Amino acid sequence: MECLSLPKSEYNADQEGRREDVMAVMKLFGGLILDIKRKAPFYLSDYKDGLNLQCVASFLFLYCACMSPVITFGGLLGEATEGRISAIESLLGASMTGVVYSLFAGQPLTILGSTGPVLVFEKILFKFCKDYNLSYLSLRTCIGLWTALLCLVLVATDASSLVCYITRFTEEAFAALICLIFIFEALEKLFHLGEIYPFNTHSDLDKLTLAYCRCAEPYNPSNKTLELWSARNITVSSVSWSNLTVKECVSLQGHFVGTACGHHGPFTPDVLFWSSILFFSTFFMSSFLKQFKTSRYFPTKVRSMISDFAVFLTIVIMVLLDYVIGVPSQKLKVPSKFQPTREDRGWLINPIGRNPWWTVLAAAIPALLCTILIFMDQQITAVIINRKEHKLLKGCGYHMDLLMVGLMLAVCSIMGLPWFVAATVLSISHVNSLKLESESSAPGEQPRFLGIREQRLTGLVIFLLMGCSVFMTGALQFIPMPVLYGVFLYMGVSSLKGIQFFDRLKLFGMPAKHQPDFIYLRHVPLRKVHLFTLTQLTCLVLLWVIKTSPAAIVFPMMVLALVFVRKLLDLCFSKRELSYLDDLMPEWKKKNLDDASKKIQEESQIMLSEKQEDPTSVQIEMESRKPAQTMKAHDPRCDPSDINISDEMSKTTVWKSLNSNQRDSRPVAAKKD
Amino acid sequence: MECLSLPKSEYNADQEGRREDVMAVMKLFGGLILDIKRKAPFYLSDYKDGLNLQCVASFLFLYCACMSPVITFGGLLGEATEGRISAIESLLGASMTGVVYSLFAGQPLTILGSTGPVLVFEKILFKFCKDYNLSYLSLRTCIGLWTALLCLVLVATDASSLVCYITRFTEEAFAALICLIFIFEALEKLFHLGEIYPFNTHSDLDKLTLAYCRCAEPYNPSNKTLELWSARNITVSSVSWSNLTVKECVSLQGHFVGTACGHHGPFTPDVLFWSSILFFSTFFMSSFLKQFKTSRYFPTKVRSMISDFAVFLTIVIMVLLDYVIGVPSQKLKVPSKFQPTREDRGWLINPIGRNPWWTVLAAAIPALLCTILIFMDQQITAVIINRKEHKLLKGCGYHMDLLMVGLMLAVCSIMGLPWFVAATVLSISHVNSLKLESESSAPGEQPRFLGIREQRLTGLVIFLLMGCSVFMTGALQFIPMPVLYGVFLYMGVSSLKGIQFFDRLKLFGMPAKHQPDFIYLRHVPLRKVHLFTLTQLTCLVLLWVIKTSPAAIVFPMMVLALVFVRKLLDLCFSKRELSYLDDLMPEWKKKNLDDASKKIQEESQIMLSEKQEDPTSVQIEMESRKPAQTMKAHDPRCDPSDINISDEMSKTTVWKSLNSNQRDSRPVAAKKD
Repeated sequence: MECLSLPKSEYNADQEGRREDVMAVMKLFGGLILDIKRKAPFYLSDYKDGLNLQCVASFLFLYCACMSPVITFGGLLGEATEGRISAIESLLGASMTGVVYSLFAGQPLTILGSTGPVLVFEKILFKFCKDYNLSYLSLRTCIGLWTALLCLVLVATDASSLVCYITRFTEEAFAALICLIFIFEALEKLFHLGEIYPFNTHSDLDKLTLAYCRCAEPYNPSNKTLELWSARNITVSSVSWSNLTVKECVSLQGHFVGTACGHHGPFTPDVLFWSSILFFSTFFMSSFLKQFKTSRYFPTKVRSMISDFAVFLTIVIMVLLDYVIGVPSQKLKVPSKFQPTREDRGWLINPIGRNPWWTVLAAAIPALLCTILIFMDQQITAVIINRKEHKLLKGCGYHMDLLMVGLMLAVCSIMGLPWFVAATVLSISHVNSLKLESESSAPGEQPRFLGIREQRLTGLVIFLLMGCSVFMTGALQFIPMPVLYGVFLYMGVSSLKGIQFFDRLKLFGMPAKHQPDFIYLRHVPLRKVHLFTLTQLTCLVLLWVIKTSPAAIVFPMMVLALVFVRKLLDLCFSKRELSYLDDLMPEWKKKNLDDASKKIQEESQIMLSEKQEDPTSVQIEMESRKPAQTMKAHDPRCDPSDINISDEMSKTTVWKSLNSNQRDSRPVAAKKD
Repeated sequence: MECLSLPKSEYNADQEGRREDVMAVMKLFGGLILDIKRKAPFYLSDYKDGLNLQCVASFLFLYCACMSPVITFGGLLGEATEGRISAIESLLGASMTGVVYSLFAGQPLTILGSTGPVLVFEKILFKFCKDYNLSYLSLRTCIGLWTALLCLVLVATDASSLVCYITRFTEEAFAALICLIFIFEALEKLFHLGEIYPFNTHSDLDKLTLAYCRCAEPYNPSNKTLELWSARNITVSSVSWSNLTVKECVSLQGHFVGTACGHHGPFTPDVLFWSSILFFSTFFMSSFLKQFKTSRYFPTKVRSMISDFAVFLTIVIMVLLDYVIGVPSQKLKVPSKFQPTREDRGWLINPIGRNPWWTVLAAAIPALLCTILIFMDQQITAVIINRKEHKLLKGCGYHMDLLMVGLMLAVCSIMGLPWFVAATVLSISHVNSLKLESESSAPGEQPRFLGIREQRLTGLVIFLLMGCSVFMTGALQFIPMPVLYGVFLYMGVSSLKGIQFFDRLKLFGMPAKHQPDFIYLRHVPLRKVHLFTLTQLTCLVLLWVIKTSPAAIVFPMMVLALVFVRKLLDLCFSKRELSYLDDLMPEWKKKNLDDASKKIQEESQIMLSEKQEDPTSVQIEMESRKPAQTMKAHDPRCDPSDINISDEMSKTTVWKSLNSNQRDSRPVAAKKD
């Protein structure tokens, strides 16, 4: 329990609070009550802090980013379940769950969304129901209700406190996987466009006058085709085949003939290449505008505004460009009517329906699997968001998070809507878009990270507007899908940036002398760092294989297995090494005491180094860093952050001039995060 | 004269040499003789130094880069002169001139090419000949011979020594203009592809089965069309119009009918968008690979090789990609037969032909204009290449340069080939591709610039191979034009980088506190810097307007006018200010004396600062820079180079560690160039 309030958010947990936490673990819902106590004082400020231009930028970006996966996921689910749950159900479910979660969750910075494992689970369930002639929607409702109940049990027993076993090792392997899936899917979707929009690889420009692709009567109509024709009262001769449009031809099972024909219809000129241009332009433009903050041009305010609105600006520009060029690229399709996709279902599902009564009880078994899935997906993302590096001041609330997810799971199940849990990449993108950075950053220099705008307003508005999207079909239909895929690529790549695992992967390609001065490279032999990275890489590859294999359903269990792999690493690595490469596995009381003594030591050393300071010399800064680093070596909680000599040097000058002017009382060490 | 050997190449000019130079100005061909004396000792090494992998990379890049403008220019000239001088003549001329120039010129780093003003001159001349019914080729030969003679006079009278009046102000305005023209033309050519390959802006994917664009009989054939038909023994009914290909339809003056028709023929699917992808990919990939040198990955050798071969690698990858995709993008068209384009001309032109005899004398008047054009184009480029910043060790040879250009002008005129002079952007790209940089550069850090691989081999091989290109049509026909346009964009943009004028332009967009610590910003008020930049910008805009206006022929005169504008600036700016913003206009003897005394002062100060040095402290480096800067303030020849505190700081650390290890004897000041 304690690990929830302590290492993850060290700011609001005082000694008093810790003792209370240990007590709370004894009684039912103790963790939940503590979560509420912790979050209640901030509740009003959660709304006040959201009244900010940066939040508007964040909301516009994430609204665009969230719409597409919700609709795409809905569409995929619709295909998988023969329209029983489709885009409109997905929109409604996401909106309802999102609004409730934003209002009452412990960590409203998390963004809920559709995740891969859930889709796999639903697909398998649907196939099972079809094979055994059961009502999918009813059985699903039962499973959902059971899962919700199990989640409630997990909340009551403070099971979320187990997240303390999720160390950086597990977090990063999981986050890396999700980011890679995001990047991979963005690219895959672009390739998929190549199938939808084939182009002529060997067109002869001189023979364009002779090129055509017309519909024709099929050579040997199959029995199915003949049945279809007779059902529509059509005879072959009554149709003027060569005058049919593509859709008509496909619906009448005609045949495409001509030099301009691909495998399944005419070649579509320009669409694929234009889509590629949109895709890559969106990616590069977003990245460029995002880092505009550190350029030399324009005043700070203008720069940070451009940086905040980077993705939204890009989307707007690309939509305009696409409109001007006029090539019929694939557009975002939002359902335009608010009603269930199939007419044979309403907004409320009977948990028994035409299924035998015992299915209600048997549903508890798949529900167990589903609970692990929901728990792991939700909590790992929450751990990543609540990371100490994010400097969150309002604390976390894993129990409340899970409670809200569980409750909405029940609601969604009864209404026959898809289930939603925390989506890793969207959540990281949300946090990144809300970063508070020092205003007076000199160009080129990395701006100092001050914290996150913690509030509930962005999430709330995103999901409210998502619910209203049905009424905005007119505007949304101009957004080309390749632009949204480009945004996904951007989100995947930019979320990778903060992952230490990738920094370590890159070390493989670097000659030793060119490696950056990471703190762990100073204290752990390179050989061991590589070993650690390779272990993590193997886990990642295994996860990927399982995720894409038919055994995808056990994916959450494998994520769980990561925790045990990490535990095994204790055998190969010393504790000191692991303290640099990873967080340590918790050992309560001992660590508490240790922390307290470290803190005192730390502060005294900062005082010391500040006294030594002399604004006319750089040398002192080099010395003053030494104790700060030694301090890090002793403190396992201390984040082994990147220290690059030349980078630090340039920062130093600026920081020093600031310091000598303002007599800023910030401790030396704070600058390094 | 002296300014040629002294401020431009300070390395090989000793006191003895200077006195000799002043003498030489008195007698005919004195400068030329000095040039030969200066260059002869290096002649053998000019070939030995070329046996290097970097030179192979440079040659491959520039061969690709030079081919396209030579052929394109030839094509344009062919259009303008009704095929009298076309691609094959252009190839032969460029090859011959280039080989001779590379073998014997004073500065073989200069790359000869076709320049805009020459094309304009030829166009006007052709129009004049047509209006007055004169033989264009004969008149052109006369003018060329006169121009060659005038060039010889300029060489004999050491007129090239006047280049000392070409200060940084003129150089940069001219170079900026040429770079902008390069960038502009690259983009313009891409837009032009949009006209050649129209696409359907409002295609309906569903109606693709109904789309067609066929050839049809024209509604009301004009008299011209009827004549054409009767000349070919064609009657309207004898042609099966709808079966004609695009070319046949155009040649028979048919009419295009259908939904897939643009203004002048059928829409060409995919080509334009694919060309855009190739264009921008080439640009970004070249830029990315070029700066790969400063990345952290791979050993130094691999990195610098990738960097050297950046453009060639990009071209190869793009050609392969284009081949795989198979979209019929526009390809480089090389003439496949070695014979004059028109059959009514041979390889030798009679200077009189059917023109009246007095045209031979009258040709001297346009030849005067042509001489100014050749002289300015050639010498400004040579000045840019011979710049002190390039640290050339083998000295310059303006007189020899001009002699070679003049001689080959005569040869080309007699053979009826186009004229070639130094091409600014190609020459800068050539020099950039031959840059020698410190091997042990740490990643991220700017590598130290050591000099240029001065040799004659790259130029020689480029132009030899260009001559043989007729026999390589098979391979060259796979190179897509958009890739070459992308290379032009890259060359234009990368050539802009070294231009101080652009650094100053950028200052307009920067708030004062974010401006880099340029040396001139320390010593000249920002207001005055802006005034200087605005003056230069006005000149640039005027040059651009003149270049594109019908009065383009006076363009070289306007470049000459730049020198006078610069002279006028002496009224608004103090000498001290100009010494920072520009080179000073020469004042012989006084400056010589001044220089000598400065040199002594300089050296003593370096000795002083070296003594003070202490490897454990950075502070000393800051102090030691102070005298170096003061020194710069006094020394007008000293290049006011960019000193950026944070940049310098990081360099310092590396340099210091190097220094403390190796006890390198390099003076402190040398590091700053």
